[in-house]
Amino acid sequence: MNDDPDYTYMQAALEEANKAAARDEVPIGAVLVHIESGEIVARNGNRTRELNDPSAHAEVLVIREMCAQTGAQRIPEYDLYVTLEPCTMCAAAISFARIRKLVYGAADAKGGGVDHGAQFYSQPTCHHKPQVVSGIAADICGDTLKNFFKAKRKG
Amino acid sequence: MNDDPDYTYMQAALEEANKAAARDEVPIGAVLVHIESGEIVARNGNRTRELNDPSAHAEVLVIREMCAQTGAQRIPEYDLYVTLEPCTMCAAAISFARIRKLVYGAADAKGGGVDHGAQFYSQPTCHHKPQVVSGIAADICGDTLKNFFKAKRKG
Repeated sequence: MNDDPDYTYMQAALEEANKAAARDEVPIGAVLVHIESGEIVARNGNRTRELNDPSAHAEVLVIREMCAQTGAQRIPEYDLYVTLEPCTMCAAAISFARIRKLVYGAADAKGGGVDHGAQFYSQPTCHHKPQVVSGIAADICGDTLKNFFKAKRKG
Repeated sequence: MNDDPDYTYMQAALEEANKAAARDEVPIGAVLVHIESGEIVARNGNRTRELNDPSAHAEVLVIREMCAQTGAQRIPEYDLYVTLEPCTMCAAAISFARIRKLVYGAADAKGGGVDHGAQFYSQPTCHHKPQVVSGIAADICGDTLKNFFKAKRKG
């Protein structure tokens, strides 16, 4: 057991990753948490295949949902939890939405845009840098992806 | 007169930028051109305010529209024209969609992600680099933005 709240929210993001796998989408999941109440207010997984939308990553989907709900382009009252290090597109979208804190599970050396590659939050063109916490439930988050692709190769 | 096709398509993108300004959105416009036929198949401008969606940049909107229409996440048969250098989010979305050629008007030193800041297409985490043509009708593309913000400050 691990009673760190970040770990608890990451479990909810992992549930969304598993649901994505069941839809034959790359298993990455995300949740948005209202800072004040601690409530999970949006949850989703990748839907790029289902929606034929290369921008339909879990992070973008929960941000779009919450922005639409609150009627605002900026939602600084929320923290975002995602099972994999966000790609460069999502890192920028998270910044535009003024998310306070980003918590991610597994690192992504091949496609990440937070701590790899573009490292967007360190760029002079980044105008809001969220707090970043990494490595929460990293092993299980990474294994969820590895097992999905291993099963694909066999299948 | 300028009969370079890139210039002609940029004029169409500029029309979308002007329509965005009329909706009180930051005036950036984009069009997608089918390479084989030369036809403009999607056109849009920023709608971040209207949609309360920080990801609703002109580039993302035309890509989403065309991907939905073709039923695919990748649309390598199209070139994208946009009045301003894409931001880091859009640069990555353009790469994910496998756009063949990106043509942009004005450079964006403060927020661009192609030739400034993250320079996404030069990153090892970028797995498709479109051809990039810059500076097409740059003055008028840039002036459209400058005039919009100048009027805002006065208004």
